[in-house]
Amino acid sequence: MTRFSGAQGFMGPFSPDGGSSIAPYPPWHYAADFLTIECWVEPSRVEALLPPGLTLHPQERGLVTVSFVDWQACTNGGGELLDPVRAQYRECIVLVSVQYEGTLMQYCPYIIVDQDVSLARGWALGYPKKIGSVWVTRSMGVTSIASPAPGPDSVFAGTVAVKDRRLVEGHVKLQYPADATAVTFGSRPIVALRHFPSMFPGRLDQPSVFELVQLQAENVQAGPVWEGSAHLAIFDSPTELLSALRLERIGRGWRYSLAMTNHSNHLLRDLRNAD
Amino acid sequence: MTRFSGAQGFMGPFSPDGGSSIAPYPPWHYAADFLTIECWVEPSRVEALLPPGLTLHPQERGLVTVSFVDWQACTNGGGELLDPVRAQYRECIVLVSVQYEGTLMQYCPYIIVDQDVSLARGWALGYPKKIGSVWVTRSMGVTSIASPAPGPDSVFAGTVAVKDRRLVEGHVKLQYPADATAVTFGSRPIVALRHFPSMFPGRLDQPSVFELVQLQAENVQAGPVWEGSAHLAIFDSPTELLSALRLERIGRGWRYSLAMTNHSNHLLRDLRNAD
Amino acid sequence: MTRFSGAQGFMGPFSPDGGSSIAPYPPWHYAADFLTIECWVEPSRVEALLPPGLTLHPQERGLVTVSFVDWQACTNGGGELLDPVRAQYRECIVLVSVQYEGTLMQYCPYIIVDQDVSLARGWALGYPKKIGSVWVTRSMGVTSIASPAPGPDSVFAGTVAVKDRRLVEGHVKLQYPADATAVTFGSRPIVALRHFPSMFPGRLDQPSVFELVQLQAENVQAGPVWEGSAHLAIFDSPTELLSALRLERIGRGWRYSLAMTNHSNHLLRDLRNAD
Amino acid sequence: MTRFSGAQGFMGPFSPDGGSSIAPYPPWHYAADFLTIECWVEPSRVEALLPPGLTLHPQERGLVTVSFVDWQACTNGGGELLDPVRAQYRECIVLVSVQYEGTLMQYCPYIIVDQDVSLARGWALGYPKKIGSVWVTRSMGVTSIASPAPGPDSVFAGTVAVKDRRLVEGHVKLQYPADATAVTFGSRPIVALRHFPSMFPGRLDQPSVFELVQLQAENVQAGPVWEGSAHLAIFDSPTELLSALRLERIGRGWRYSLAMTNHSNHLLRDLRNAD
Repeated sequence: MTRFSGAQGFMGPFSPDGGSSIAPYPPWHYAADFLTIECWVEPSRVEALLPPGLTLHPQERGLVTVSFVDWQACTNGGGELLDPVRAQYRECIVLVSVQYEGTLMQYCPYIIVDQDVSLARGWALGYPKKIGSVWVTRSMGVTSIASPAPGPDSVFAGTVAVKDRRLVEGHVKLQYPADATAVTFGSRPIVALRHFPSMFPGRLDQPSVFELVQLQAENVQAGPVWEGSAHLAIFDSPTELLSALRLERIGRGWRYSLAMTNHSNHLLRDLRNAD
Repeated sequence: MTRFSGAQGFMGPFSPDGGSSIAPYPPWHYAADFLTIECWVEPSRVEALLPPGLTLHPQERGLVTVSFVDWQACTNGGGELLDPVRAQYRECIVLVSVQYEGTLMQYCPYIIVDQDVSLARGWALGYPKKIGSVWVTRSMGVTSIASPAPGPDSVFAGTVAVKDRRLVEGHVKLQYPADATAVTFGSRPIVALRHFPSMFPGRLDQPSVFELVQLQAENVQAGPVWEGSAHLAIFDSPTELLSALRLERIGRGWRYSLAMTNHSNHLLRDLRNAD
Repeated sequence: MTRFSGAQGFMGPFSPDGGSSIAPYPPWHYAADFLTIECWVEPSRVEALLPPGLTLHPQERGLVTVSFVDWQACTNGGGELLDPVRAQYRECIVLVSVQYEGTLMQYCPYIIVDQDVSLARGWALGYPKKIGSVWVTRSMGVTSIASPAPGPDSVFAGTVAVKDRRLVEGHVKLQYPADATAVTFGSRPIVALRHFPSMFPGRLDQPSVFELVQLQAENVQAGPVWEGSAHLAIFDSPTELLSALRLERIGRGWRYSLAMTNHSNHLLRDLRNAD
Repeated sequence: MTRFSGAQGFMGPFSPDGGSSIAPYPPWHYAADFLTIECWVEPSRVEALLPPGLTLHPQERGLVTVSFVDWQACTNGGGELLDPVRAQYRECIVLVSVQYEGTLMQYCPYIIVDQDVSLARGWALGYPKKIGSVWVTRSMGVTSIASPAPGPDSVFAGTVAVKDRRLVEGHVKLQYPADATAVTFGSRPIVALRHFPSMFPGRLDQPSVFELVQLQAENVQAGPVWEGSAHLAIFDSPTELLSALRLERIGRGWRYSLAMTNHSNHLLRDLRNAD
């Protein structure tokens, strides 16, 4: 365990009071503004990304959502909000439709975030986060040409860049209110892959941690959901997997806000000895 | 004028369609969430910063407001909102109470922003902007411990860093609705100093541009204003003037949202030949 | 002049000791590692960018150099080097061959830099700088696969991104030592356009400052120059003029280091009344 | 292992060719310019940070080195150097003198880096990296007031900021050449703590990975070492452990360059079931 000689922390750096940790202990409370676009990509490309235990669901082969998200997060005391550099970040999360033992779930093969606290939490939870630059159109506290309010004909956009290259951009023109439960983040179970590599000679392909897990969002609270027509473009990249998914069709888009809490994961399978 | 051989732009880089300019031609439409804290500093320190034509007003000697602002801005077409890296920035603006020919105004001796488009627009308008890092607590579209809604007991904070040093931090605990007209940005005339240096031998102290101007905000639209108790700390810095102002008393704080448009300035005095 | 009520500075923010200025007073001393690639673009595209007084030279129509530069700079005291966030920046400078009254010169229509001190100095000198992200392969103090030393077969690369989009990338494979005087920065006079816009109603196209100037680099000191074969790619962009220049041919490339000092400019023409 | 349905990578995101991974597979080749300052802090403060198996060595109680480092790194192909945003980063590494089974080693309780590739590699190796801003005075390819060459009376500085607060700054005035083997990075074994948290209910303090490891630098190549007098300041911070170490005495400083390769670690102890 992480208590040794008085050094504490959810992760390192370990310090007497745990305050130096790259990420604080859960629970983590989040609030976010989401812009989500659904699309279909070549199913075999998604299939190739799935860990053991997950397969495509016959009715949602190749279905992917790309979400551009403005997050604010804190621990129980809420103290991060007094120093918001520690509380705010933007993220692009890609979720693909999968089934696990017959249940429809969403799996995250790719996710970009712009801050280290969130990156570290993501690795602990099973999200393979990398650092990038994410931007999302905002709705300020007053409506004007410079500040759309969610509603008919308002347009919200999101963009992502990784290592100085624009990777994705999308926007949604809102049309009508939608049913929240169908589309919001976490409305379906999220399955993730916790992984941590070995560094020992000859064992680089035998990870120290390789677990299929289910995420346990709690206290989920979604605001009104607006739905509309969507545009999405994924650009070429020498490295990023998103560019290789081959976009076949773009679906609808949604804008909504959401609050939730994360405490812990539920283990589905330890994959270290799988096939 | 800037039309030459087909190259256009409000500022450089000049290009055939003007699109390369560091900042587009006005009008510029803005929407913002403001967190404003009033304080009093040693009056002689403020007085030392005033250009010719401005003096302290006997009733507001040493009164300063420090605002932490989340901005979104665009031109007439609104296209920047489809690529929000071009539309969004955060800013800390310091305004001091002054009088010009007997009229109470606010003058900006110091302002930090985190994007070049806004920096360039600022220099054109008369704001002496530098690049820094500004963070402001946000109110997302759903209320939770991670997302305060403006209202009784909610707390909003702002921080500023310049060249890797924390310079200011403040927060406001909201208590009750306030009268918008008294406190919002632009409720009083803003006087600014347009300056551009000479680069010619022996003339480095005879600026090419040195104009006292009044800013002309239009279409000002303020949302509800919440007022509360405020905390403000200004830290030591080897260079930044804010650190030298000697904070004497902290007043109230406000949170509100605001939209407006900027077209142009009004010239008060050309200072090149003053005294 | 900028002295008023005790507030000083080469540019704003003005403060009692001038230390708050976005850029210090000259002289400015620079040292740099340059990677320069020459190319030819469609001459009429360059011609369209030239201010009054400059024309293409018949023997160098469409000749452009793109340089990726690692800079360190300071004032007389050298104090910036003790706080290197104030001294270091990376830049991509584009120079086109022009003639002014029959003399071959280089003119800068486009330049990207990653720090505000350099941006402000650039505007004062006549360089139309914008903020971007620039990277250049380095030669550390020891040679290894991770650190090329300038010499036969070593490869150095540069990249530029503006607002999250990759704009340029290039590299040079060095082959042999070259004659320094022919190719290094400043070996030819540099002509620049000092511009500062008006903000007054109806006068947005009548700039307050619009001067054709010649730069006066002093104490120029160049290290050994290595020359080699070059690769350069310029990517599409919705705004940046570089993308519209139509690259026709790529020439050679050079890597070298250089130190110099800037004090002031020499005025060639005040263009405010030039048609 | 990480091969599943065709998805590869040293770490996630896993993709068919492994190219999306936050960090590539080792071996990793590095070259660096180091500025290292030794100091002594209150021994009990260091002792409190040590994991099981490590203790203070009687002759070096409280000895700490703080290094500011400019890195360039690549894999076997060297391709990262053609896109240097993927190859370069700056780091501040803190190493404390410890003994493991009677052997003097260095342990890293705290380390700041400015790029995610290096952060991820660090977590795999056992370095508890967080993202911050690090700056180090450089020696360009030509000597001038703006570019010191390592030698008598030249001064090199380093600074670190974490989440917008300056945390450390130091500088060294070089005096004479020193013996490389005594002081360079890796001249002593480095012991590290590989840690990855559990995310399962009730097990947040029973890490999934908790290994005391020894790092295996290979092909170490050090350039000339210069030694001199040093200055170091550590500033207050609400979170960072470095601020709590209580600096008692500052020793000498060194500047040198170094190249090396990392393949893998050697396991010293699996601490999951320790005490």
